[in-house]
Amino acid sequence: MRTILIGLGTIGQSYCQLLENRKEDLLTNYGIDSKIVAVADSKGVAIDEKGINISDILSVKKNNKSVSELSIGDKSKTSIDLIEEIDAELLVDATPTNIQDGEPSASLLESAMKTKKNIITANKGPLALAFSSIVEKADYNNVILKYSATVGGGTPVLEFGRKCLEADKILEMHAILNGTTNYILTEMDDRGLSFQDALKEAQELGYAETDPTLDVDGFDAAAKLVIMGNLLLGKELVLNDLKIDGIRDITQKDITKAKDNGNTIKLIASVNNMAKVEPVVIPKDDPMSVAGALCSVKFVSEFAGEEIIIGKGAGGMETASAMIRDLVEIKQNMRV
Amino acid sequence: MRTILIGLGTIGQSYCQLLENRKEDLLTNYGIDSKIVAVADSKGVAIDEKGINISDILSVKKNNKSVSELSIGDKSKTSIDLIEEIDAELLVDATPTNIQDGEPSASLLESAMKTKKNIITANKGPLALAFSSIVEKADYNNVILKYSATVGGGTPVLEFGRKCLEADKILEMHAILNGTTNYILTEMDDRGLSFQDALKEAQELGYAETDPTLDVDGFDAAAKLVIMGNLLLGKELVLNDLKIDGIRDITQKDITKAKDNGNTIKLIASVNNMAKVEPVVIPKDDPMSVAGALCSVKFVSEFAGEEIIIGKGAGGMETASAMIRDLVEIKQNMRV
Repeated sequence: MRTILIGLGTIGQSYCQLLENRKEDLLTNYGIDSKIVAVADSKGVAIDEKGINISDILSVKKNNKSVSELSIGDKSKTSIDLIEEIDAELLVDATPTNIQDGEPSASLLESAMKTKKNIITANKGPLALAFSSIVEKADYNNVILKYSATVGGGTPVLEFGRKCLEADKILEMHAILNGTTNYILTEMDDRGLSFQDALKEAQELGYAETDPTLDVDGFDAAAKLVIMGNLLLGKELVLNDLKIDGIRDITQKDITKAKDNGNTIKLIASVNNMAKVEPVVIPKDDPMSVAGALCSVKFVSEFAGEEIIIGKGAGGMETASAMIRDLVEIKQNMRV
Repeated sequence: MRTILIGLGTIGQSYCQLLENRKEDLLTNYGIDSKIVAVADSKGVAIDEKGINISDILSVKKNNKSVSELSIGDKSKTSIDLIEEIDAELLVDATPTNIQDGEPSASLLESAMKTKKNIITANKGPLALAFSSIVEKADYNNVILKYSATVGGGTPVLEFGRKCLEADKILEMHAILNGTTNYILTEMDDRGLSFQDALKEAQELGYAETDPTLDVDGFDAAAKLVIMGNLLLGKELVLNDLKIDGIRDITQKDITKAKDNGNTIKLIASVNNMAKVEPVVIPKDDPMSVAGALCSVKFVSEFAGEEIIIGKGAGGMETASAMIRDLVEIKQNMRV
């Protein structure tokens, strides 16, 4: 499958790594021969219509350089140029999330649809801001749009709702969707750290960004919830519809009070009649009360009752594994 | 869909109830018009090729009587006669599990395949004893065989592995699969009961049978594990291949010792290179360490890492909801 890959941070690199590791498996078991014909990182591009050597991409990134150092193809091209000008069947979008205007991802998706390329995106931004219009546009243009990696890292949260409960009816979802805040709250509870100290530790460990707003103020969880609500409950939600409360104001006193009653505080994203993200006191032995960087999603369905799925909510390889699942599904659904 | 239903215990009745409750939904959303043309309980049969009124079936069972009281059709027929002689597209097998020889279910499945009827079974027996030959026979006869209800009650354990991880590779599974033993172990841990007292309580609450062997000696969990191992790991296991150890010998002393170290004892069914069921000491805060009648399954997959799904592992309506999921999948896969 002729692929244009945009974005070579942890997720983009892990995607390349998995393509390498699973080359044989993907070809033999799913008939997928993935060929990266163009690639872009934040500093430049590389193009080779015969397919770029994936190990070359990985080694240039390992040395913290741009793929433009590979010096193949016209270096003056932008990511949009690649999508509009190069013959390919698939865009893989591993650009960083931006929940202000969804860029650069929004324009990449737009170009891919216009030029009839199928899409795998790991970027929550555009879907959180305009889910239904993007999905509609993909349908209209007859391209397959997959976004399993936007929710739950490698944990198949969207697939579970879509494939395992399709003959049931999901009524509500309640979820811990952000690993950074869950790590912070866990450390505040387990070790009595203040919010500031736990945040600092999460930053030192590389869990939280220098600007932690997206995580600690609840926007990352909210963006994921918007995607779940649209896909699995058919709600036409956008990020602005949500009531969003982060964990910045949670004090050690709040934690202790919860603890004294056998409870703990978690940042819960939930959608039923309303969609919201807020700190909630829940029993410590509630099965969805996971620790550290895990995520958990409780589905309340009409007939099967309550089901919870738990997994690692982030991580490069895990997230890339969700993108490979998307790749297989696209292959299975592509009209030959 | 012309259906023959055998077995009208809790699960068979719940299946009828769900067909009634979801009549409109099944017809509108999935094109399923389910018509029960013959039904059998342990005392007799009823036959009506135009379709038996489901509320009549439910009301006769509510009064603890046999469907033979409905006095429709030839009362002298056996279950096997129904399958062999009546024109139908589907056998729904809700007979009780027997892990000695799989009967009566094994013969029902055999007859259904011979007469080209698709099958939904909630009975673990035949599959635990001869999974691969039964699946092979279904393929050979070109009938669809579905058995979601055999593992996890309403929790879509088999579907999760099959549909959500199909593009990954499941390496291992570890699971709490039997609600009765999990209830007993939970009560021994929480309230300090002895095994005997906890068992007695489970029996009084209707969780455990008068002869609790199938549950407490680990056979129910083992039968489920055999089905998971065959379907999801491609292992050609039968019940006899497993090392099976139940919870009968767990003492309050064992529990206390585990507890002192922050652990608890669970009956874990696991399959990797070996398949076995045995009591295992696990950390109390392990996410798969669920309490009471819940079940939990941890999937270790090659790329996405560890994922856990948790749900109610039994219950009439929950189990019947899995059978309805099977019904929808059969409808979607039936050649018209």
